[in-house]
Amino acid sequence: MNKKPQILKTETIASSRFFEIESVDLRFSNGVDAHWERLISRGHGAVLIVAIDADDNLLLVREYGVGVERYELAFPKGKMEAGEDPAQAALREMKEETGYGSRDIRLMQTVSLAPGYFNHHTHLMLARDLYPEKLAGDEPEPLELVRWPITDVDALLARDDFTEARSMAALFLALRL
Amino acid sequence: MNKKPQILKTETIASSRFFEIESVDLRFSNGVDAHWERLISRGHGAVLIVAIDADDNLLLVREYGVGVERYELAFPKGKMEAGEDPAQAALREMKEETGYGSRDIRLMQTVSLAPGYFNHHTHLMLARDLYPEKLAGDEPEPLELVRWPITDVDALLARDDFTEARSMAALFLALRL
Repeated sequence: MNKKPQILKTETIASSRFFEIESVDLRFSNGVDAHWERLISRGHGAVLIVAIDADDNLLLVREYGVGVERYELAFPKGKMEAGEDPAQAALREMKEETGYGSRDIRLMQTVSLAPGYFNHHTHLMLARDLYPEKLAGDEPEPLELVRWPITDVDALLARDDFTEARSMAALFLALRL
Repeated sequence: MNKKPQILKTETIASSRFFEIESVDLRFSNGVDAHWERLISRGHGAVLIVAIDADDNLLLVREYGVGVERYELAFPKGKMEAGEDPAQAALREMKEETGYGSRDIRLMQTVSLAPGYFNHHTHLMLARDLYPEKLAGDEPEPLELVRWPITDVDALLARDDFTEARSMAALFLALRL
């Protein structure tokens, strides 16, 4: 197993309100140098919640994603706020985006998006034993809530607007439990 | 179902060799305006390959990810080059990273990473009927090839260095096929 490369220098080469791009000079244990870039996500990570209601429906939301310029069907998700643990952040996001809370919420896995160039991580949560409670969110328009029978996963995977790798990983992890 | 928001203005606010950050002014169909940012990935997308050998082992590679500053175990992957289709790019990446080609390579799904702020997409491929063939890659150090029995997926998911959402989604999709 290779020894970790040494990070010789990091430098912020561009930044904006949400993102920061760093250049990184590395030396690998074999003596080879590399000059790479990476994205630094400002914040405390994110949560994504697979919430399952009493009738075995998945609670999905339809939300506009300006990265791909289309509406995407996905599990509710959002950024963690300072001081929140994953379960607290997940409960808040659920209430904001679906109008439900949960008495049984737990961490399934923590995933990375692109470990080669991005430090971002998302906690994938499973929520059951739901109860109605709405919190106001900061969305520019109300999200559409879509109840999807957990028995009909094939049809969900066949859709061209259910594309997010995190949502797909979370779906399969929930099905195993 | 909501009508798509109108994109009023986009502007590059920061850029580097690999990334570009854009600001986007949007007007939602309810009249609410939003000012967001998004990442533009330069290039042609990426491929990730679940290759399964004749003994039902998954071919994984251990590679240093400077985004998370650790070695990660993941399926071989890489950027598509200009003019390549997903199968051609996958075959090249397999040969570079694992030393194997495939006579049976197909697309399982195309996934997004973060549709809310990133235009990136990755084609998840399944490769079988392997044969040895090595192409030189551009890695600063040789990648370690790890053969993982497909019957031992639980142990793979329990590892703390198998975290990539794309790899996890691809694993589950391959298991269904």
